[in-house]
Amino acid sequence: MAALNALLGEMCDIVGDEMEQATQALLEADLELAEQVISDHDQLTERSARAEEMAFELLALQAPVAGDLRSVVGGFQLVAEVDRMGALALHVAKVARRRHPFQVLPEEVAGYFVEMGRLAVELAQSAHNVLESQSYQDALALMDDDDAMDDLHRHLFTVMMDREWQHGVAAAVDVTLLGRYYERFADHAVSIARRVVFQATGKTPEQLDEVS
Amino acid sequence: MAALNALLGEMCDIVGDEMEQATQALLEADLELAEQVISDHDQLTERSARAEEMAFELLALQAPVAGDLRSVVGGFQLVAEVDRMGALALHVAKVARRRHPFQVLPEEVAGYFVEMGRLAVELAQSAHNVLESQSYQDALALMDDDDAMDDLHRHLFTVMMDREWQHGVAAAVDVTLLGRYYERFADHAVSIARRVVFQATGKTPEQLDEVS
Repeated sequence: MAALNALLGEMCDIVGDEMEQATQALLEADLELAEQVISDHDQLTERSARAEEMAFELLALQAPVAGDLRSVVGGFQLVAEVDRMGALALHVAKVARRRHPFQVLPEEVAGYFVEMGRLAVELAQSAHNVLESQSYQDALALMDDDDAMDDLHRHLFTVMMDREWQHGVAAAVDVTLLGRYYERFADHAVSIARRVVFQATGKTPEQLDEVS
Repeated sequence: MAALNALLGEMCDIVGDEMEQATQALLEADLELAEQVISDHDQLTERSARAEEMAFELLALQAPVAGDLRSVVGGFQLVAEVDRMGALALHVAKVARRRHPFQVLPEEVAGYFVEMGRLAVELAQSAHNVLESQSYQDALALMDDDDAMDDLHRHLFTVMMDREWQHGVAAAVDVTLLGRYYERFADHAVSIARRVVFQATGKTPEQLDEVS
């Protein structure tokens, strides 16, 4: 189980790097970097397959029971969460590639993506830490960072809804989808944190809240 | 395993109904129906939890090996797919509720959503059938229906990108997100089909294509 968690942590680092580079490719209309993110994505796929195999081996060879069984099954679900984070980073890189040599982002929203990108990378890093420490306090702290992402995402929409938006509908469609990708990336980090909270305490974050 | 598949099939029916009603609520700006979808969503959550417990019991009591082990683990992943389809139908209902008493959809795109809604319901139904029959031919047929969804989704974007779009950015943002929800709903049905193909043949749909 420790080896599986270590591999999951490594996968978090990969999706964090992927999102960092995809964001940079997006902000700088950097085709080469976007292509690199897209071709490097195999590294994640390969590790996902390896992590699933590790979880199968744990199930098959060690026949865990009760709590251990739940944590191995949780392992499969964690793989799926991190995998999906990688797919979302890939989507960002693909938007940057599709619009090249043009900038996807009008200047007035670029700052939001700088910030959402920074938060996304931080969330991936926190997810790694949480998987390593298995600390529910760390997991709850990660969930606060997601609130910041939600705020940014909401503000981004206000900017687009503003009557002053001069960049047309095509740009709004791109910005809407991109905003959604970052928000979902963060949601998956939160799901990882929720699983660790439950694993560590037997309670959901909401049930913990009621107690405190 | 048969009981788990039956419950998963029932969950597919629920998410199909959810998407059907959410689409109707969206098209008719029907607040009451949107509210009903939102409050009925608990039915799905309750069944998801029950399906996960069934899968745990299969693992714990029957200690399946090899292929059976993989199919029980696949069961957890199927629960997550259907769950997510329900969450997406819920998102559609929430958009309808948020914009009430206004129509979310400009008239020129309403037809796309009629059609995407119909396809989504059909895909949920096909996913139920595929889970029941475990037939890889049915699963491959489901994947063709998803191609139709992708085509609709692409056309929808062309309509918005058109210079004639007179409905402003706010409507474009809503339509973009809604389009994404239907597309993702279909993607999850496809993931269910992919799992059944693999379960039935030991190959991915792509590997089957190479053979034929």
